[in-house]
This record gives sequence, structure tokens and C-alpha cells, in this order.
Amino acid sequence: MNKKFEEVTISSETIYEGRIIDVKKDQVRLPNGKTGTRELVKHPGAVGIIPITADGRLIVVEQYRKPLERSIVEIPAGKLEPGEEPAVTAVRELEEETGYGANDFTYLQTIATSPGFADEVIHLYIAKDLYKIEQPASPDEDEFVELMEISLEEAEEMMQDGRIYDAKTVIAVMWMRQNMSVNK
Amino acid sequence: MNKKFEEVTISSETIYEGRIIDVKKDQVRLPNGKTGTRELVKHPGAVGIIPITADGRLIVVEQYRKPLERSIVEIPAGKLEPGEEPAVTAVRELEEETGYGANDFTYLQTIATSPGFADEVIHLYIAKDLYKIEQPASPDEDEFVELMEISLEEAEEMMQDGRIYDAKTVIAVMWMRQNMSVNK
Repeated sequence: MNKKFEEVTISSETIYEGRIIDVKKDQVRLPNGKTGTRELVKHPGAVGIIPITADGRLIVVEQYRKPLERSIVEIPAGKLEPGEEPAVTAVRELEEETGYGANDFTYLQTIATSPGFADEVIHLYIAKDLYKIEQPASPDEDEFVELMEISLEEAEEMMQDGRIYDAKTVIAVMWMRQNMSVNK
Repeated sequence: MNKKFEEVTISSETIYEGRIIDVKKDQVRLPNGKTGTRELVKHPGAVGIIPITADGRLIVVEQYRKPLERSIVEIPAGKLEPGEEPAVTAVRELEEETGYGANDFTYLQTIATSPGFADEVIHLYIAKDLYKIEQPASPDEDEFVELMEISLEEAEEMMQDGRIYDAKTVIAVMWMRQNMSVNK
């Protein structure tokens, strides 16, 4: 792992231990020998799934996002359980959020969402060859989502009008542009 | 603004007011009438700049990211000052981090980085027709960055080997793929 300009921890203070995130404040030794402060949000990490139907549509969910105080359209996603392999989380979250399984899961890319203040990473998977699960596991009880299947053209429209704008879903739409233009 | 499945705030507790982030814990009324808890990180928002040189290279910076405990390669970026227009921040951060100005700034897209727990958005700009600034403003005193100019091919390599993996820079590389393939 590249440690250029490393900031060595001098001391670490736990500000908050929450249900999903923890918050820490570290004193660090900067590369010039001075001391600095770093505020850090610890997150368990997550997966995002790009589910593509047989006719080339993207399955997305609309849900309210309290931090943004609005609902947005996103690819299915969910947090890793402690010790859980991301590929396992991806299968679980696809089922819970969409009711689909996939015969073809392909790892695409891991993204760090906010490297300035958070350690959250999202592991992205492409899911193809989808099939309906008869009695799918339900989402978490405080999750309310509406399912949609959208074409690349509709996804582009939703990026234009701002219904799609979270990073992982923007990446999903750009991926579709690059890999599905024959289906346009 | 779309309010489907709105979660109405019942009460809000401030957990932490920091230098860059604030943390809040809200009790909310869920769509089914039950009560839920939401942990929220407040961030001032940021810009990311995709600076493209005359020969089609991307200007990036390598820097240590304490939350990830490693250094990564990213497009130039920086936080909004209070009340600052993102377009102004973009000009300032490009100068501070790279020493370049740009005659051609084009707005690309705004991304929400972590809509599940944070309100951070990054406004992305393409910067072209670059020129060296003779005595550029310096970056913040606790910022240590190394400048690089990389081809699309080198950017793809860095995504493969994990030096590039933050969301805004992955989007920048995907944008290059779509818009600069004639220069490959």
C-alpha cells in the first residue's frame, strides 16, 4: 500500500459510536513534522449492484435519503455485515431490494466515496441473467423503496433532471453508456 | 424536489461540530408511521476538477488520505468556503493544487458521494485550455500533494492497480474514455 506523505497517528479520540457510523478525531504527524487534526467517519463498507435485464434495462430503486432531504433513484446497494464477503452481500442485497437473483455476477470496481473524511468503500458488481425469486427475503424494516426498470435513455434523462446523481449510480450509467450502446 | 417516502424530522441531536464535518442524529417519522433513527454527517460540499492538457493528459494529485490510511491518486478537488459559488471554488482549487489556470471551464455533473449517511456533494468541472500561473496561490498548509500528468492509458492502469479508486476520479477516467478515445 502506498504510504507517500503518510500521516502517522499520534492520538485518536472516539467522538461517537453509532448504529452505522463511528466518528473519530485523530491527531497526526504531518510530513513536515507539524501536527494536524483529522476527522474520520468509519463505515462498514457497502456493495452496489448494476442489475441488467435481458432487454438491457437497469433495475434501480427510488428511496428517500435523509441526508439529502429528498428521494433519489439509485442502483440497489447495501452495507456489509461484519465479516461478510462483498460478493455475498451483493447477492443478498439484490434479492432484498429487487426480488431478483442473478446467474451472472461480475465484479466491476471498488470505489472510495469520500476519501477526505470517510473510509467508506462500495464494491460494484454487474448482475446479469436475472431471475425472479419466488419468495424473496424482505429489505430492512426501515427501508422503503420503489423498484423501476429503466433504459439507458431513461437513465440519461434522470441524470439530466437530477433524479440520479449519487456517485455509484452515475458510474453505473456511464458503464451502461460504454457497454450497452449497441442496444440503444 | 422529490419527497417520496419522506422521513419527517421529529427531533435532531447535534453529536459533534468539527472543523470540516458536523454529525447529527435525527429521530424521524418513517412512511409507515413508525419512528426511526438517522445518523447524518454534514459537509460543506466540494468541487472536483478534470483538468485536460493540450496533449490530452489528465492532471492528477497524489496525496495521503487518512481515512483510507494510504495515499491515492485523485483529480484536484477542494471544499467550498461558506457561501462560495462552486465555479469560484473550482478556479481556486485548480490554481492551488496544480498551479494552472484554465480558459475553458465546463460544468459536468454534481455527485452525491454517500447519500446514506452524508450530505456531501461534489460539483465536477472539465478544465481545458490550461495555462501556467506564474506565482500560484499555495494549497492549505496541511495539504501535501504530488502533481502528475497522466494519459488515459496510465489512468486505466492506475484504476487496475488500485492507485485510482475514489469515486470522483473513477468518473473522471470514465469521462476520458468516452470523450478522448480519438486521442488513444
